[in-house]
Amino acid sequence: MSYPSDFSTRLKPAAPDGATVIAKERERSNINITQLSEHLMGSEYLERQRKVLAILSQEKIFSKSTQANLSRPDRYKLGLARGKRMRQLQDKHSWDDDDFLMAEYLVDDIQPYHLHISLFTAAVREQASDEQRAYWIPKIAAWEIIGAYAQTELGHGSDVRGIETEARWDPTAKEFVLHSPTITASKWWNGTLGRTANYAVVIAQLMLLEDGGYKPYGPHPFIVQIRDLKTHRPPQSIVVGDIGPKYGYAPMDNAYCLFNQHRIPHSAMLSRHSRIDPQTGVYTKPKNPSSVYGQLTRGRSVIVMNARLVLARAVTVAVRYLSIRRQFHDQDNPTQPLETSVLDYTTVQIRILPLLATTFALHYSGAYVRQLYERTRKNDTTIDAVDEASLSELHSTSAGLKSLATTLAADGIEVCRRSMGGHGFGGGTGLVQLNADYLSKPTVEGDNWMITQQVARYLIKKFKERAHSLNSHALSQTEEHFKIYIYGQSQEPKFDVLKRDQAIVDAFNWRMACIACRAYDAREIEKRSWNSLLIDFHKLSRAYSQAMLVSNFYTATADNSDDMAALDASTRAVLLDLFRLFALYTMDSEAREFQNSGAVSSEDLDKLPAKVLELMERIRPHAVRLVDAWAIPDYLLDSALGRYDGKVYEDLFYRAHMMNPLNRLIFNPDYQTDEIVMGSGDAGQILAKL
Amino acid sequence: MSYPSDFSTRLKPAAPDGATVIAKERERSNINITQLSEHLMGSEYLERQRKVLAILSQEKIFSKSTQANLSRPDRYKLGLARGKRMRQLQDKHSWDDDDFLMAEYLVDDIQPYHLHISLFTAAVREQASDEQRAYWIPKIAAWEIIGAYAQTELGHGSDVRGIETEARWDPTAKEFVLHSPTITASKWWNGTLGRTANYAVVIAQLMLLEDGGYKPYGPHPFIVQIRDLKTHRPPQSIVVGDIGPKYGYAPMDNAYCLFNQHRIPHSAMLSRHSRIDPQTGVYTKPKNPSSVYGQLTRGRSVIVMNARLVLARAVTVAVRYLSIRRQFHDQDNPTQPLETSVLDYTTVQIRILPLLATTFALHYSGAYVRQLYERTRKNDTTIDAVDEASLSELHSTSAGLKSLATTLAADGIEVCRRSMGGHGFGGGTGLVQLNADYLSKPTVEGDNWMITQQVARYLIKKFKERAHSLNSHALSQTEEHFKIYIYGQSQEPKFDVLKRDQAIVDAFNWRMACIACRAYDAREIEKRSWNSLLIDFHKLSRAYSQAMLVSNFYTATADNSDDMAALDASTRAVLLDLFRLFALYTMDSEAREFQNSGAVSSEDLDKLPAKVLELMERIRPHAVRLVDAWAIPDYLLDSALGRYDGKVYEDLFYRAHMMNPLNRLIFNPDYQTDEIVMGSGDAGQILAKL
Repeated sequence: MSYPSDFSTRLKPAAPDGATVIAKERERSNINITQLSEHLMGSEYLERQRKVLAILSQEKIFSKSTQANLSRPDRYKLGLARGKRMRQLQDKHSWDDDDFLMAEYLVDDIQPYHLHISLFTAAVREQASDEQRAYWIPKIAAWEIIGAYAQTELGHGSDVRGIETEARWDPTAKEFVLHSPTITASKWWNGTLGRTANYAVVIAQLMLLEDGGYKPYGPHPFIVQIRDLKTHRPPQSIVVGDIGPKYGYAPMDNAYCLFNQHRIPHSAMLSRHSRIDPQTGVYTKPKNPSSVYGQLTRGRSVIVMNARLVLARAVTVAVRYLSIRRQFHDQDNPTQPLETSVLDYTTVQIRILPLLATTFALHYSGAYVRQLYERTRKNDTTIDAVDEASLSELHSTSAGLKSLATTLAADGIEVCRRSMGGHGFGGGTGLVQLNADYLSKPTVEGDNWMITQQVARYLIKKFKERAHSLNSHALSQTEEHFKIYIYGQSQEPKFDVLKRDQAIVDAFNWRMACIACRAYDAREIEKRSWNSLLIDFHKLSRAYSQAMLVSNFYTATADNSDDMAALDASTRAVLLDLFRLFALYTMDSEAREFQNSGAVSSEDLDKLPAKVLELMERIRPHAVRLVDAWAIPDYLLDSALGRYDGKVYEDLFYRAHMMNPLNRLIFNPDYQTDEIVMGSGDAGQILAKL
Repeated sequence: MSYPSDFSTRLKPAAPDGATVIAKERERSNINITQLSEHLMGSEYLERQRKVLAILSQEKIFSKSTQANLSRPDRYKLGLARGKRMRQLQDKHSWDDDDFLMAEYLVDDIQPYHLHISLFTAAVREQASDEQRAYWIPKIAAWEIIGAYAQTELGHGSDVRGIETEARWDPTAKEFVLHSPTITASKWWNGTLGRTANYAVVIAQLMLLEDGGYKPYGPHPFIVQIRDLKTHRPPQSIVVGDIGPKYGYAPMDNAYCLFNQHRIPHSAMLSRHSRIDPQTGVYTKPKNPSSVYGQLTRGRSVIVMNARLVLARAVTVAVRYLSIRRQFHDQDNPTQPLETSVLDYTTVQIRILPLLATTFALHYSGAYVRQLYERTRKNDTTIDAVDEASLSELHSTSAGLKSLATTLAADGIEVCRRSMGGHGFGGGTGLVQLNADYLSKPTVEGDNWMITQQVARYLIKKFKERAHSLNSHALSQTEEHFKIYIYGQSQEPKFDVLKRDQAIVDAFNWRMACIACRAYDAREIEKRSWNSLLIDFHKLSRAYSQAMLVSNFYTATADNSDDMAALDASTRAVLLDLFRLFALYTMDSEAREFQNSGAVSSEDLDKLPAKVLELMERIRPHAVRLVDAWAIPDYLLDSALGRYDGKVYEDLFYRAHMMNPLNRLIFNPDYQTDEIVMGSGDAGQILAKL
């Protein structure tokens, strides 16, 4: 686009300009950013980020500046081109999987091959027999075939047992017949399958002949060719396509897919865990039916770690912009020369600074879940052998954290956006696409409300065990909290949360145990219906997960581990304030539960808002350096408001005046003519696009 | 698009299909939908909706089915074409202003002429002298000129006094010189100005010579030609364009605009309220500086009435879809033949049914504000003469309600979306664009957090007056609540909210008065800083506005007015349950404030969740008919999930398989070639669009 040469090029922003302001903000704090960055992200990660970013920034195809102007079909084309280029760069620079994932993360625009490298590859790896692995994995690794993962259907998502797609075993032909009996049986949402993939792992109800009729044996995975490798067209027995525009993920081709008596060979059934004997037709059941949980749990730990970075992005943009933006003079000092920095208003601080603290809270718990998962995995080399009890604890834990973390992040992006006022609604935030994409997270990998039942079910079971026997064997942490509560119930402990940090953690655990006790009473003693308790279960899961966040945050900051000892004392003091802010802000939001459970006195709860104000005042000068520590590059932020150098207004104007294709056209505003572009004679042309 | 003829055309959804389910839902309730619709919307409105819809549905240009696929420039072109067509239809069918507004509402895609017919016209009507009106109004009415309203700047939004654009009076040439001294002085966000308008009312700092230098006289309105009426290009002294893609409002050309010593005649200053004598240069101040509030207040009453309809749309989609969608069997009855309707889960009800009740709460308060505004206007024919005191009460009232109503609606859309799980993220909701567009509302016409200060300032002033003199003159309702609180403070009333509806209203007013009293103490007695109290002020405004919603809802439903008497007794009973649900759900969310203020006993507050469950169970069978009563046509909903006939899955599949332009293309997935569309040789072409 040619640069219009006009008087606007001479103009500067009103003083003080953003670059000056943000430099002063950085002078107000002595946090060692490099140190804190390495503490949070690890030097390996930061080095990888630098390395991959240097390569991506050389390539025009990864420029984000104008992609928001493109049509949906062009967004897909761009996504496909980017996916190809990423893989070419992987070949060229010998990127490992983590490098490739870093490239995807930085480009931040889902690419249509994504399900091939994630769920499809994982499904084949975990569900295929050794023989099947040997055949498929090399083709998959070389992208000779492109695969998708087709589980969800139009009529069924969360409830996998309800899926309608059938795979009937035909003992004569020794083939399976894939069939969609209804329109609701259509596969739906399956990424990469809509336009890109030529293969898919299809989850279908296995149907076997029994007493002269077909009987269902539950959902099983089949690897199925969907499109011809030359023409890229499906056979007549498969109808497949992209479901159309969604909230986000414009470049991804989420699919619908129907099968009409589509025959696949016996070898199509991925048979690591269960199989059909081709000769006898005898079915072998999976040894460990819970093996599927491992993958789900891993997915959730990734989601929690991702939530912290997504929220950190939104908070980075908000903190930087809001410290530069000034609006209104202080009511009590109307003659001050400068208007007030928006981040100095308490009504803005109360929205942003607790979220800043939340990024750290999520970090320490995300790290905890990852460690726990890896520890459980290490008990044996295969997932099948993972100890059932630990897996069940981890599973319930990760479900609650997934729910809370993605809710905090999704809601947090919007809180950040609204805090930025008018410019928060504009394209210059860098949050438009992030928000639209991220809004999927409260739903995928287990709906955030639905999965809290799992947490409650687990906690009620544990509470029941402890209520009957306090001192059986070695107790888990949760069981210890239950024990403390059951012993201490009558004493109303009133933890001194304003004076002792450990008391804050104790108060969160006490309140969790109290709500668990009530849920146990309601379900096990009063025998109330499951459905009537679901809201209480959701509150229990939230209380449990908040206690986890608070506890892990405190453990991490209070510890004298090597990791924490590497930080300056002043930085550690700020981290401790962030812990207090997160915990006490959360406590204030849920004050009545802390009061009713007897964990904190009403007098202390009344003092929380003042305490939160005091903590925010202490943290405020460090806000810019704290977001800097998350080390989110400008390329990823793609935000005029959040750029590192503070040139907010210059960039907003540049994007509008120089980067907007709409400004290349002159229009005809006369309503009596249907011409749109002045002098083009294009009357009626736009109709053809509808 | 040609219809692919394949086996999918033969398929039906799994039984029971949506049409059957929703018919049964409608059988469960005896609410008279026609009656309730007329009660809510008025028969004139419903007739207008029918009339305009019949015309719009004849025109392909207003078809919404594929617009989400278009590029941003095409969205603007489509918007311009639609705006033209709407005006042509207005001429053809002699539509009045309300008909035209109805067309805009139904098409539901902001059209680029919108600021011409709204703020530009209003500004000229209210700010121009009689002579200026006579000159401009006919041209504006005939769309001979297209105008915009340019107030907000890159550096200043809410704080109008901070705007930088200058209008210097040149006494020699007898002209004003419009000038943008900095880049932050650029006009910004001004709809219709980016590409469409040739005129604008520009708000600029009036600068007059005084003691040899220019002194600012505050912001004033000037009518300025921006583009040539023939070429549609701006002069060299104006830089103007569209700011680029935003969260929503894709068809609107929000502008940036800079002036470089741009000269405009003396007649350009709109001089109804203040003027410059062209001969002497003497400035006449506006008589009533608050006259600007009238327009703002009216704007806010429209926003509240609009919020109820927007929320009703989201709730309509959610209620219809969630009663059709089934997922999982009841835990306590696993052998039931059908899975549970999602709307029967209490965790879904608690999100949707209070929002359903909120649409009615907003309705009765929106109607109340509109009546109040119209009553104030009727005191005199011109806004200048409006009684200052009533205007001030109305202004603070409307600010609080605007803040609460738009927050409830904006958050409510997202709650509805998430409640719909996977399909809630898809384009079939009909909420994608609504959400993106509506997210502007918590910010425009006064940021929702910022404007709560106005409510607090007003209430503190009123509380101070009452604290010093309880029985002066006739008291407003708010002052009566203060009086009751001041007299009764020591008695801790504990309103019996579970038994008496009036007690619910009293409890809300008591809690409001208690928070007002604390705010008064903190500011007036303890002399705490304004900034340190902003969070408390926000809570006060929320408490005040919630009390208004609850009080107006109760007054309307309990009254024996003609309006209410026209409804069947059974319908009135459901409305009363909706009132209780809204009020008690809100009370439960804010329980600690009700407890601390002494309005409700802790024991009663503990019983609220059970009471809310009970109310939801009573309202549940009426849910579908209640949303039907909002009479939102399928054309406006544009939602596969929310369609009246319940054919959810059929429509989702049809939209995906038949209406998606991406499915017309076959792609090349081989990463080793840069070709995108199979066989097209288009390698590298997508780069040209970046």
